[in-house]
Amino acid sequence: MPDFDDFEGLRALLSAAPAADAQAQAAARERNTQLTKPPAALGRLEDLAIWYAGWRGNPRPAVSSPQIIIFAGNHGVAAQGVSAFPAEVTAQMVLNFQAGGAAINQLAQVAGARLDVHALDLDRPTADFTHGPAMSEADCVIALQTGWDAVDPASDLLVVGEMGIGNTTSAAAIACALFGGDAADWAGRGTGVDDAGLATKARVVDEGVQRHRGGDGLETLARLGGRELAAMAGAIARARTERIPVILDGFICSAAAACLAQTEGRALEHCVAGHLSAEGAHGRLLAALNKTPLLSLDMRLGEGSGAALAIQVVKAAVACHSGMATFSEAGVADG
Amino acid sequence: MPDFDDFEGLRALLSAAPAADAQAQAAARERNTQLTKPPAALGRLEDLAIWYAGWRGNPRPAVSSPQIIIFAGNHGVAAQGVSAFPAEVTAQMVLNFQAGGAAINQLAQVAGARLDVHALDLDRPTADFTHGPAMSEADCVIALQTGWDAVDPASDLLVVGEMGIGNTTSAAAIACALFGGDAADWAGRGTGVDDAGLATKARVVDEGVQRHRGGDGLETLARLGGRELAAMAGAIARARTERIPVILDGFICSAAAACLAQTEGRALEHCVAGHLSAEGAHGRLLAALNKTPLLSLDMRLGEGSGAALAIQVVKAAVACHSGMATFSEAGVADG
Repeated sequence: MPDFDDFEGLRALLSAAPAADAQAQAAARERNTQLTKPPAALGRLEDLAIWYAGWRGNPRPAVSSPQIIIFAGNHGVAAQGVSAFPAEVTAQMVLNFQAGGAAINQLAQVAGARLDVHALDLDRPTADFTHGPAMSEADCVIALQTGWDAVDPASDLLVVGEMGIGNTTSAAAIACALFGGDAADWAGRGTGVDDAGLATKARVVDEGVQRHRGGDGLETLARLGGRELAAMAGAIARARTERIPVILDGFICSAAAACLAQTEGRALEHCVAGHLSAEGAHGRLLAALNKTPLLSLDMRLGEGSGAALAIQVVKAAVACHSGMATFSEAGVADG
Repeated sequence: MPDFDDFEGLRALLSAAPAADAQAQAAARERNTQLTKPPAALGRLEDLAIWYAGWRGNPRPAVSSPQIIIFAGNHGVAAQGVSAFPAEVTAQMVLNFQAGGAAINQLAQVAGARLDVHALDLDRPTADFTHGPAMSEADCVIALQTGWDAVDPASDLLVVGEMGIGNTTSAAAIACALFGGDAADWAGRGTGVDDAGLATKARVVDEGVQRHRGGDGLETLARLGGRELAAMAGAIARARTERIPVILDGFICSAAAACLAQTEGRALEHCVAGHLSAEGAHGRLLAALNKTPLLSLDMRLGEGSGAALAIQVVKAAVACHSGMATFSEAGVADG
């Protein structure tokens, strides 16, 4: 029995999703004023802790069970030469994730996070979106549902990442379709495409957007996205309904998330931006989503890597908030 | 038997300190090109890992024993009303560090770091530097030696932090004396001083700099600094001789470090800037030291807090570098 049969079902779940717990958030805000530090001296860590407290419904929460989920998918559009790597690398990297050899494996371990990997029909790439929709609504719903089901409701912080040769092209097309502007503004180097590849990529994005523009977020996700992007969106949506805070990763993750935001305005209230990717258009996309990144370290790997690193920032913020003594507990004069 | 009897002895130790291991660094750089990721996709994490490998003399190192040391001192200049908090708070916060209730206690725990706290003659504040030198050379050497001795030679990553009501005033005076400009450009809000306090602070800094300018780094440290700043400088110097990489914290830590850099040009090669503090002049000070901060989260707490958070970034960088599979190990096509 699926949680939703079609886009309409997912839209209904998103619009019915509970907000953050205002009472817990207010109590956390009050606690923050009493901690042994000058006001606002922990900067963004303070806002993060209060935000986290609200979503967890606990004024003094802990981060104990972070989950990272990597979704992998293949893209018909990869055949047009939009990537520096061949499409076989998607499956090869899935094996690398499973063997523990990728960057995200190391980052998950450092963060103390569970890591799950889901490969979505790698032998059945999505259609080339310059010819027709990448996915039917039915195929997109299956991928959304895969992401939805992959979230452990017992986790208390979620990162979703991806692997999919060609998927910055999908992400650029989605961003261009949803937010406007020229294809060339949204197409970037991805894994390191050369000038000719970049020109091809911009042309492919433009063709896709010309053909498929005008849909809402979920329709755009199906027409220009990929299975791993849909699964990321499904996981982020599920986290919204479970009040599990989410750290967004880079350009592709943000494009998937944008599809939810264009469908339901409050769909990303439970999300922070983990980092600013070196992929050129990510800053513009985050600005469109009204999110300020936590980290900016010139990373552009995907795999959830930037967000996985940001787990540490959220953990540190919550640890300070919940573990510090108050002025009265510590006998410190509060200025 | 002290390691140095006077400034001249410390200068000699600094100028004789070994450089990073060029061979290990080159081997780490070569390994980095073979890891299963697009070139440069981990951004600054790659540079960090290579830098760390060089200082540890190991092309595939681990971060297993980070040490955080907090030094506390009191400042005669605090009597002039340059802080939002009374001077008693220095000793109160030392008790809070010892009881585990401060932000740095939580951050050390999250980072898996050892935390040591050294209170330096809190009942004997340094002299008000608008009247005379804050410390004699002999007193400054004792504080430098305290910092030097506090470093565990078995640690493999060092953060030094501070607590000392009035110490952003000392740091501003040091920066102004070493790098020029107006006192008002270097004086900031510190723990949250009001407009009148800020004007007082700028005047005090200006008076101190007029009286004491013209010394080299260590002389400036004695004349305008404080015991906790000198101890931080001593610890950073010791780490340089032991090839222990250091993460610099905020404005005060950077000012202490600057005293070493003005004494010996290569004294901070083993240091990265952990974060950009919200204290206004920190960015300018880091630029003068030619350091680009890893984090920028509007923190301005001191206690080593920003650098302690950045331990996670260094750990993650080294974990990726040393733990990831190469293209040939993983059977992944390298583009």
